[in-house]
Amino acid sequence: MKTDSVTLEDIRAAHARIASRVHRTPVLTSAWLDEEVGARLYFKCENLQHVGAFKARGACNAVFSLSDEAAARGVVTHSSGNHGAALAWAARARGIAAHVVMPSNAAQPKQRAVAAYGARVVFCEPTLAAREATCARVQAETGATLVHPYNDLRVIAGQGTAAVELLEQAPGLEVVVVPVGGGGLLSGTAVAVKAVQAGTQVWGAEPAQADDASQSLRAGRIVQTTANTVADGLRSALGELDFPLIQAHVDDIVTVSEEEIVAAMRRLWEALRVIVEPSSAVAFAAVRGRRWSGGGPRVGLILTGGNVDLDHLPWSVGA
Amino acid sequence: MKTDSVTLEDIRAAHARIASRVHRTPVLTSAWLDEEVGARLYFKCENLQHVGAFKARGACNAVFSLSDEAAARGVVTHSSGNHGAALAWAARARGIAAHVVMPSNAAQPKQRAVAAYGARVVFCEPTLAAREATCARVQAETGATLVHPYNDLRVIAGQGTAAVELLEQAPGLEVVVVPVGGGGLLSGTAVAVKAVQAGTQVWGAEPAQADDASQSLRAGRIVQTTANTVADGLRSALGELDFPLIQAHVDDIVTVSEEEIVAAMRRLWEALRVIVEPSSAVAFAAVRGRRWSGGGPRVGLILTGGNVDLDHLPWSVGA
Repeated sequence: MKTDSVTLEDIRAAHARIASRVHRTPVLTSAWLDEEVGARLYFKCENLQHVGAFKARGACNAVFSLSDEAAARGVVTHSSGNHGAALAWAARARGIAAHVVMPSNAAQPKQRAVAAYGARVVFCEPTLAAREATCARVQAETGATLVHPYNDLRVIAGQGTAAVELLEQAPGLEVVVVPVGGGGLLSGTAVAVKAVQAGTQVWGAEPAQADDASQSLRAGRIVQTTANTVADGLRSALGELDFPLIQAHVDDIVTVSEEEIVAAMRRLWEALRVIVEPSSAVAFAAVRGRRWSGGGPRVGLILTGGNVDLDHLPWSVGA
Repeated sequence: MKTDSVTLEDIRAAHARIASRVHRTPVLTSAWLDEEVGARLYFKCENLQHVGAFKARGACNAVFSLSDEAAARGVVTHSSGNHGAALAWAARARGIAAHVVMPSNAAQPKQRAVAAYGARVVFCEPTLAAREATCARVQAETGATLVHPYNDLRVIAGQGTAAVELLEQAPGLEVVVVPVGGGGLLSGTAVAVKAVQAGTQVWGAEPAQADDASQSLRAGRIVQTTANTVADGLRSALGELDFPLIQAHVDDIVTVSEEEIVAAMRRLWEALRVIVEPSSAVAFAAVRGRRWSGGGPRVGLILTGGNVDLDHLPWSVGA
């Protein structure tokens, strides 16, 4: 691996490294959704991946890339979301320690998920400064390797493996659409898709209320925004390692409203009968907003995760 | 096919007939659920089948078994549930007419699902007598072939194809558990499993509040009961063609409470991240009730359907 970028070879090496440990998730289709959108849609179900998210891929690649010596000192990250659970899961698979730094106000289910995979949860004040300081302290104390949720080349290469499988499972895709938060999935996907079949478009999809990727591409530099969206997995700012890959390889970023995200999420539950979290629905919302009048392209979408608090759904439910 | 029974050869012929038209649905596993139950569980996701239910298999086999002459006159059934949608879907695939008799008080979403697949919905009074009379009238008027939801050898053979795939996808199963309503899935599954690997147990699972299969096996004849259960797919009485197959091949019927069904349904949503309807959760509820202290058997379960009214879930949900 080069020191500052990710190539298809890195992604293929990651795939060889993790393929026996992650699920080759199924690709679902729906005649109903195809009719609605006027295109042929192929949904790669990373919500059915270990820990319920594609994050298992990047975390697994990072953990199994470590030398035995480094691995023995464990891994650490700061994430109250799916990456924390994924790193805990991957570390357990290698039999090493994982430390997950979380704000003291993180939701109980998220704390439990990380702990259930055997990681040590380290609480900190809910500020970026406290999070980074706590992470640095754990690193200093333990010698653990930091595995950042997205600003990490091993993680980006791991996330790109989902697209490699999708291109095999759904031949002839003309567009691939994935949500963009910190940019790990989008950059890994874009590198993979453009290297395997250069004519295929790659779109990122993000909430209009967290549109830092759109703004950053226009500005030519990473722009920070205030993110306020139901798609809690997409609130992160773009990573410095991810952004140049996105600049180089992504064709378009589509933004969607909060209402479109919730409607798309519900439609996926009904039509595909799988549980997707709001962040996962953002790519489908983007495709749904385009609508072709029939004869539209073959579109691949990655359903990124399925971790939802079933006691609090973004629509009203009677008993 | 013999006139009064179903054999593995019939099921294999059905599989050859329908394999290009139905999904080979994935088999999911969950380390969490395995730990909870103390066994290794393999979930065959027929909730991800066409029309969201295994019923697509039986309906497809019945429709594509018809001679061209019979097919040209269409098919008819009475079902306000998944079989109605499945028959409509299969008929459309063959390009023939389907008539689905439904009580006038059937839920709107069920009417819409059948109509969306292009079937003609024929309403009748909500009584068994009216349903049978209306069905007979449609048959007389159109010459359509009746495809009963479960008391039909072509349907039973079609339902058995899910077990054939499951045994291939999850080698070495020691127990296979499926829900029992009218008995089409259970009888087809039992014939397939016992013929392929006689040492594997086959259990039926049913709501305690709709325990006609348990009662019938004990009595040695079909017993009718009053069914009052959240598992609306399992309210039917056993079919006359299904019962002897169940008597011959099924090892046990396990009953579960309404509370166990709802808890199992919710646990499947959380741990597998797929949407299953209450009837689907009955088999998992049965396995969950047994609990081994680790080292339990390899258990295959068929998740039968995923059609749920998302506005009305059997647990309370906040916004």
